[in-house]
Amino acid sequence: MTNPPDTTSNRRPGGRTARIRAQVLDAVRAELAESGHEGLTMEGVATRSGVHRATVYRRWRDVGGLLADVIAAAGETGWQPPDTGSLRGDLTALNQEIQESLVVRPSFAVALMAASFHSEQAARAQTRLWADRYAQCEILVERAVGRGELPARHADARSLLIAATAPLYHQLVLLRTRPDPRLPERAARAAVLAAAAGAFPVPREEGG
Amino acid sequence: MTNPPDTTSNRRPGGRTARIRAQVLDAVRAELAESGHEGLTMEGVATRSGVHRATVYRRWRDVGGLLADVIAAAGETGWQPPDTGSLRGDLTALNQEIQESLVVRPSFAVALMAASFHSEQAARAQTRLWADRYAQCEILVERAVGRGELPARHADARSLLIAATAPLYHQLVLLRTRPDPRLPERAARAAVLAAAAGAFPVPREEGG
Repeated sequence: MTNPPDTTSNRRPGGRTARIRAQVLDAVRAELAESGHEGLTMEGVATRSGVHRATVYRRWRDVGGLLADVIAAAGETGWQPPDTGSLRGDLTALNQEIQESLVVRPSFAVALMAASFHSEQAARAQTRLWADRYAQCEILVERAVGRGELPARHADARSLLIAATAPLYHQLVLLRTRPDPRLPERAARAAVLAAAAGAFPVPREEGG
Repeated sequence: MTNPPDTTSNRRPGGRTARIRAQVLDAVRAELAESGHEGLTMEGVATRSGVHRATVYRRWRDVGGLLADVIAAAGETGWQPPDTGSLRGDLTALNQEIQESLVVRPSFAVALMAASFHSEQAARAQTRLWADRYAQCEILVERAVGRGELPARHADARSLLIAATAPLYHQLVLLRTRPDPRLPERAARAAVLAAAAGAFPVPREEGG
């Protein structure tokens, strides 16, 4: 999916190949922003990117391939989870990032979600990206346990992270409520309170 | 949107008009189930329903009109929120219903969410339906306060209901994780624990 740089035909590894990918994916993002994934076509992307259409067809095959690659590229940006010194602060900062990405117009994040309802390939890439992001965020919970904010037995990271972030997606993407600037902090606080009360126990090892 | 029964041309109020609406909306549901909203056409619905296409065009105008009306009809079914005797039981039962509606294949609920990314009219109908459902569910929180399960000052019903239900939509619709039969109860329990810890305070009245 991520089209590894073609090192056989270029002196600088990935030079030309990486440049073409960047041009094409920039064009995909611009087209998505302008007209959503429904307006996305191979021809439109080729024209906007200035890359030969035969190259676009050969490397990305179809619109699903373009969407999957633009999602994969979003996972290659060196994103780092926040580190504010407290779990509540970290989750609030994370939620602020999420809220911004969903509220900005046009929203690339929302366009990708819409696309993944319609392209199985995009949906798989989206699922993978989210799995990676949640895995990256588990460190927030590990650090909180390390600081003594939360007992280890109450720190099932995945459930806690889902509880903290899900209300943002639900309200902003599905319910389409007006963005509330206090929501990131409130959802973070609710998840931390639930965690402290034992809502996210670590599953016990089976057998033994 | 809900096409009130035409009482001028029928002896039984809504008789023929209501029958035509039922036929057309049944056809919309069947077409959505078979091929999603992308396969939904005025012609397809007219053919399947056996209703004259001129009638379908006159009353529903376009695919957005059909989607909006099928969503409106979902709000007219006399649905009642669960009443199990405890907040945790009620939220678990509610989450079980939600999980079932999202997991069944084909899922009418998921088809409508997908459609509302693409039709402004469907999106408005969906937002209205959800607002109604959450408003109907506020009674769960009121009853819990009445039973002394939760102090009234900690019982902001809307935030509590969103916290209880959002993880299901997030996991099943957006993250597409494998359905976990324990999720409805766990998400309900987490929300109740957070509520007891004061995560959902009722906003104070402004001024005075």
